[in-house]
Amino acid sequence: MFLTSLITKVDQTNVHCHFSKITREKRSVALGQRGNFRGCTIWLTGLSCARKSSIVYALEEYIVNKGLSAYCLDDDNIQCGLNKNLGCSNDDRVENSRRIAEVSKLFADAGFMCIVSHSSSILEDRHNARQLHENAQLPFIEVFINIDTLYESSKNPDLSIDTNIVSSEKAIEMILNKLAEHKIISPILVYPVRELLMCDQRRSESLEQFPQMDKFDITSLDLQWVQVLSEGWATPLTGFMRETEYLQCLHFGCLMKGHIENQTIPIVLPCSSIDKERLKSNSMIALCYNEKFIAIIKSPEFFEHRKEERCARTFGTTDIHHPYIKMIMESGDWLIGGDLEVVERIRWNDGLDQYRLTPIELRQHFRDLQVRIDKRLLY
Amino acid sequence: MFLTSLITKVDQTNVHCHFSKITREKRSVALGQRGNFRGCTIWLTGLSCARKSSIVYALEEYIVNKGLSAYCLDDDNIQCGLNKNLGCSNDDRVENSRRIAEVSKLFADAGFMCIVSHSSSILEDRHNARQLHENAQLPFIEVFINIDTLYESSKNPDLSIDTNIVSSEKAIEMILNKLAEHKIISPILVYPVRELLMCDQRRSESLEQFPQMDKFDITSLDLQWVQVLSEGWATPLTGFMRETEYLQCLHFGCLMKGHIENQTIPIVLPCSSIDKERLKSNSMIALCYNEKFIAIIKSPEFFEHRKEERCARTFGTTDIHHPYIKMIMESGDWLIGGDLEVVERIRWNDGLDQYRLTPIELRQHFRDLQVRIDKRLLY
Repeated sequence: MFLTSLITKVDQTNVHCHFSKITREKRSVALGQRGNFRGCTIWLTGLSCARKSSIVYALEEYIVNKGLSAYCLDDDNIQCGLNKNLGCSNDDRVENSRRIAEVSKLFADAGFMCIVSHSSSILEDRHNARQLHENAQLPFIEVFINIDTLYESSKNPDLSIDTNIVSSEKAIEMILNKLAEHKIISPILVYPVRELLMCDQRRSESLEQFPQMDKFDITSLDLQWVQVLSEGWATPLTGFMRETEYLQCLHFGCLMKGHIENQTIPIVLPCSSIDKERLKSNSMIALCYNEKFIAIIKSPEFFEHRKEERCARTFGTTDIHHPYIKMIMESGDWLIGGDLEVVERIRWNDGLDQYRLTPIELRQHFRDLQVRIDKRLLY
Repeated sequence: MFLTSLITKVDQTNVHCHFSKITREKRSVALGQRGNFRGCTIWLTGLSCARKSSIVYALEEYIVNKGLSAYCLDDDNIQCGLNKNLGCSNDDRVENSRRIAEVSKLFADAGFMCIVSHSSSILEDRHNARQLHENAQLPFIEVFINIDTLYESSKNPDLSIDTNIVSSEKAIEMILNKLAEHKIISPILVYPVRELLMCDQRRSESLEQFPQMDKFDITSLDLQWVQVLSEGWATPLTGFMRETEYLQCLHFGCLMKGHIENQTIPIVLPCSSIDKERLKSNSMIALCYNEKFIAIIKSPEFFEHRKEERCARTFGTTDIHHPYIKMIMESGDWLIGGDLEVVERIRWNDGLDQYRLTPIELRQHFRDLQVRIDKRLLY
């Protein structure tokens, strides 16, 4: 528990301590972040021409769209306001950096990811900003954008990005990765879509191991869910739901591992009591469909299906005349949860596979369409 | 839609517009406030001895405990940081106020209720701070604490509080009421407990109207819920749930009118189809228990009970061997929602009424106990 703004005050008659009664943990609850305090400053430095502003605003947009709180302080909005009475002298430059550091510290203390874009070319200015944050136990992440010889380089830069080589999108991904490394955001937030397909090497290893592995035959419905999971439609799920995820889904309609994601439909793999007894001591299970090797479940967890509760909470009824409820009620009494590694992309060979694009393919497709629109507008 | 920090930037080759892509509505979603942007500055002014700091920190604590975002900037934490290079000259005084105004504007723009405590004795300083906020379309609420003749009074003060007359608790209530008046917070937040009992005048009016009113007989279970509602245990509910509240409760486990409050159990009043037909065109219904006039339901709303769904979503089962489910299934097919006015406190005359304290009585009781503990520590 770190109380913010600890202040001691003396009045005429008595000694009084006035300080904020809010812990950082409590602040993060009020910010809708369930006790994960994320206050920090991300300090981007570089010359004016370095496209810093486009990066900071895109980064802010990405973070806020993920339901977290970020706020930008950049040369432009600070220069028109707080620092408008400063000029270009050496003293003014120092004061400029000092004020931005103080304000970013207040924002970080309030629980925001404060994104600063500032052409702070002098090492000492940046060092002071970092010191200020460290004294308040707030993370300070220094990012260089296209740092050249004009700059005094920092002794311990957190990240250096050359926008002549990497795209803005990649630059943001690099910063998000740095935030995840500092445990400020969940790694899930860095990649919005996570595919669960094996790489080539892993595939050949698995195919070798396959004959020795215990097997579990899945239904065509299960195979559809394997497809959903493997293509990343259900990110942040890394496989069939484990019991914690299942209960979160049924009771709260969302997953709450590091970050809250809506998930009202259980994605589960039922099995019979016989299969459970047969497989429960395995650390890996091979899933097969029509005798074909489909996927591996790692560190499987067996738990009660609670079929009646599942139907009641998902559909608001337990009537077996509802076709999906009938299917659930006829399925196994146990569920197998665990991380999934899928051998290859699921194909149905019904002539429609070419239309079944993955989220990553769709994103790329929309990006391409946008490029085409942009080109049409240009010429 | 008001985009924050609109900035136009020119670089060597092209005209580029850089600005935050986040609307204030979207910011408030990230703050966990479902699109209700609450950014504003509450500017408390008064001499140093005026106990401003204790009020601002208690106000901050109250707001953050309600799940909303507030942050304090006070003479103390700003003077040790941002404004530590300012002295007591006239110019420095003006610059001191200016910087606090600029920073509070940034916090308000980010969606925070920024609580400023500042001995800003000069009208022009305060006027400039207000102007800055108004230009950015952000509410600015000026509160005077014990303003005396040393101060230049404002032309349009929003609120004036004399802490020699009112307690800190009352001062906070006055500020919260002002925030509710400006639609920054929901009025529900001002009073955490809202009793639904009639005042003396209303009681005598109702007793006069009673013979002419249509009557509905309630069960002892219904009477227990009338007691729960009337004593404020289920604030912010103002009566038996209307359909919107019922569905929010069943599907989301909370009420979402202006402010989100947990509410997983439906508080409803069932009635038969016959009673529904008899009463549906009334604007008021008298609730009676054992022929005694208990309460009035105003602007009643009749809607389907959806008993199976209610049981399924509340209990995760529809098995009528569960005693409460049996009771629900045997109750009326319709529900009556509406605001409740309860004639007098519900008493059961079983010798235990003296132990049935209301939330307000309990709060007072705990406050008294605290006073006694404090006294014991002092002497």
